[in-house]
Amino acid sequence: MEPYQLTATEALAKFKDGTLTIEGYARSLLARIEKRDAAVQAWAYLDPEYVIRQAKQLDAVPLEERGPLHGVAVAVKDIIYTKDMPTQHNSPIYEGDEPKVDAAAIITLRHAGALLLGKTTTTEFASTTAGPKTRNPHDPGRTPGGSSSGSAAAVGDSQAPIGLGTQTGGSTIRPGSFNGVYAFKPTWNSISREGLKIYSLILDTIGFFARSVEDLQLLSDVFSLEDDAPATSDDFSVQGAKFALIKTVVWPQAGPGTIVALEAGAKLLRDQGAEVDEIELPPEFDNLPEWHRIVLHSDGRPTFLPEYRVAKDKLSPFLADHVENGHKITRAAQLEAFDGIAALRPKIDEIAGRYDAILTPSVVDEAPVGTESTGSPVFNSMWTALHTPVVNIPGFKGKNGLPVGLSLVAPRYHDRRLLVVSKAVGAIFEARR
Amino acid sequence: MEPYQLTATEALAKFKDGTLTIEGYARSLLARIEKRDAAVQAWAYLDPEYVIRQAKQLDAVPLEERGPLHGVAVAVKDIIYTKDMPTQHNSPIYEGDEPKVDAAAIITLRHAGALLLGKTTTTEFASTTAGPKTRNPHDPGRTPGGSSSGSAAAVGDSQAPIGLGTQTGGSTIRPGSFNGVYAFKPTWNSISREGLKIYSLILDTIGFFARSVEDLQLLSDVFSLEDDAPATSDDFSVQGAKFALIKTVVWPQAGPGTIVALEAGAKLLRDQGAEVDEIELPPEFDNLPEWHRIVLHSDGRPTFLPEYRVAKDKLSPFLADHVENGHKITRAAQLEAFDGIAALRPKIDEIAGRYDAILTPSVVDEAPVGTESTGSPVFNSMWTALHTPVVNIPGFKGKNGLPVGLSLVAPRYHDRRLLVVSKAVGAIFEARR
Repeated sequence: MEPYQLTATEALAKFKDGTLTIEGYARSLLARIEKRDAAVQAWAYLDPEYVIRQAKQLDAVPLEERGPLHGVAVAVKDIIYTKDMPTQHNSPIYEGDEPKVDAAAIITLRHAGALLLGKTTTTEFASTTAGPKTRNPHDPGRTPGGSSSGSAAAVGDSQAPIGLGTQTGGSTIRPGSFNGVYAFKPTWNSISREGLKIYSLILDTIGFFARSVEDLQLLSDVFSLEDDAPATSDDFSVQGAKFALIKTVVWPQAGPGTIVALEAGAKLLRDQGAEVDEIELPPEFDNLPEWHRIVLHSDGRPTFLPEYRVAKDKLSPFLADHVENGHKITRAAQLEAFDGIAALRPKIDEIAGRYDAILTPSVVDEAPVGTESTGSPVFNSMWTALHTPVVNIPGFKGKNGLPVGLSLVAPRYHDRRLLVVSKAVGAIFEARR
Repeated sequence: MEPYQLTATEALAKFKDGTLTIEGYARSLLARIEKRDAAVQAWAYLDPEYVIRQAKQLDAVPLEERGPLHGVAVAVKDIIYTKDMPTQHNSPIYEGDEPKVDAAAIITLRHAGALLLGKTTTTEFASTTAGPKTRNPHDPGRTPGGSSSGSAAAVGDSQAPIGLGTQTGGSTIRPGSFNGVYAFKPTWNSISREGLKIYSLILDTIGFFARSVEDLQLLSDVFSLEDDAPATSDDFSVQGAKFALIKTVVWPQAGPGTIVALEAGAKLLRDQGAEVDEIELPPEFDNLPEWHRIVLHSDGRPTFLPEYRVAKDKLSPFLADHVENGHKITRAAQLEAFDGIAALRPKIDEIAGRYDAILTPSVVDEAPVGTESTGSPVFNSMWTALHTPVVNIPGFKGKNGLPVGLSLVAPRYHDRRLLVVSKAVGAIFEARR
């Protein structure tokens, strides 16, 4: 196995036992990137020399002074500020812009010893579905999803073990599914969003891509994610576990890949001795897709006002329309949506709390053809609005052989427990690949 | 009248009719600052030469190309990023830090032609009540309040016509009251908070100080604050208007200055033909002070994690305690508070919607002696949590002759209407000074 193929946890073990230097690891990743970049195009900014300089500095730190991510390479979505690299938001307004400030998450990652590889592509301000240059590593004729396109593709293509993303609609879980990797959207505001370009304050959530649940657990340690009750792997077995299968109100949009995956996933869990109950959410949850849309558009109104004022001609018409309130969303409608979603949060916690996890689709289907559109977030946006943690579990494939994942969902601030469940479920789903 | 004494609206009129240059205006403000700075100490950063350079550039712009704030001087709280000045958050961790990025509000203000004077003092990260160096311009032995200490003192002392603040507890309305100026906390998220250091996402709100309501209306135009129904001054007369007088559950903490002011304010309105009904909020609103505290502490947990990791010894123990969850706030308690507040927002809108405005205290009393503590936000935090717009109306005085204001509150997104009401009420309250 080449170093670039290692998960973060595996690489850390090799740094510790001296069988791999961080420089050697970085060179392996850079070689992988060089080989694959023309096909995948995951990077908005990458300076190989700077990567090697960082790696050498990290190699020079004695073992006993190293943090929990020392030497682990991280791909950073290009709406997250990094003081040593440009942050361009895939917007001509910010072309070449290099604010000298680190996002909160970047400060924490650097302090833990992470090696920041570079910035990854995004849709414009992580706010549209118009794809960037990036291609799905499983099929260059298809989108990797979005808006965290580059981070998901880089992790899916073993160009980085860890990717940082964000999700306002379905920008972490959807590309996670399309690229066949684990994707984790923690509980809203459980990790500081300082230094992430805003789309909607109440929706935007930082997220992670990785090729193992252990790596997500490692990140959760670094970011001090804590449930009320500590969760360990010993606490959970699929045998005897209880899952809710929720197709949601948007199920009629599911394509064959998701229909087959959801059925197969439920069967695999049942075969392992779990109870999988298909349930329907109460009818008030049917408002979520529309309420999410209203909150998104009305929150975009103040968000993009500065760019609209300064350079309206360089702003996508979709976002200019938010500022102009082209959909004529009244304040009354905006508040009804905002308050309506808020009232559903304790209700979903109560429902999800009856199960070890909710099993629900991650995507409409495998990644669509073309890079013009990053696909539909319709199966994700309700969970984003509800603030619940979500993990995309890879393991299935669509008609064309591209990855299809399924989502596991837990009540808010049950992130650690959800990862324990995800690890066990992931092992089962991935075993069939 | 010296130029430094002008409101923004008055200064704009003089720029337009050619009786004042922006450079002349800037020099007048700088002379005022030079004269008063030893006593008030409102500034964390101010470069007079840079101010004059900006003023000369602004003077060179033809009248027809000028924005709505062209030449208006603005004092900026030092937790708001400005790419041409340091942003230091009154934290030793960020001493001399100069991120090359403008907050969203700064982009909008610059585009409108504002002249950024400098950065004003704040408590540490706008998150503690430990006072900065700044003194109350009405009595140098007293606090100007906080955390927007410098912006409020600068406007109160005519060192700037407009000040930018933020409010998470009572950081705009309280210093507004202490310094005898108008202070406006708009509806939460009606103006982008991008580029403001985060304390609590769901509480932090950008706010403004000014010496007239016209100036607040001017700012509201610049930031495109819009109610569902357009509001104009012709729409409102105190004669025949209806106010709710709400003392709130924390009324036992009110001191003589506020007790007298509230009584006098209600009488003045009644004398002008308004109906002023004292009402009590339903008992569930009594939870707000405690719920606000829980949200604040638990939101501080992820917020200050990066600073805690990097430089715990340079972080105030109060904020380190947030990260360590020293108060042992469970996730369940955190969510109960978060959801409990959310459920009250539509209720306060409904109650406030029955009146032209709610009249309620801004502060416990006039500014306390000393600069160690910036005073109590207890009368403000509930409205911050409820997301309602609030205006501090100056006009009263406490036992020691220092300013005491009163708050007017409206339903969410009735900001423009609230300003119309505030203008009429302010004229009455200020007439008795």
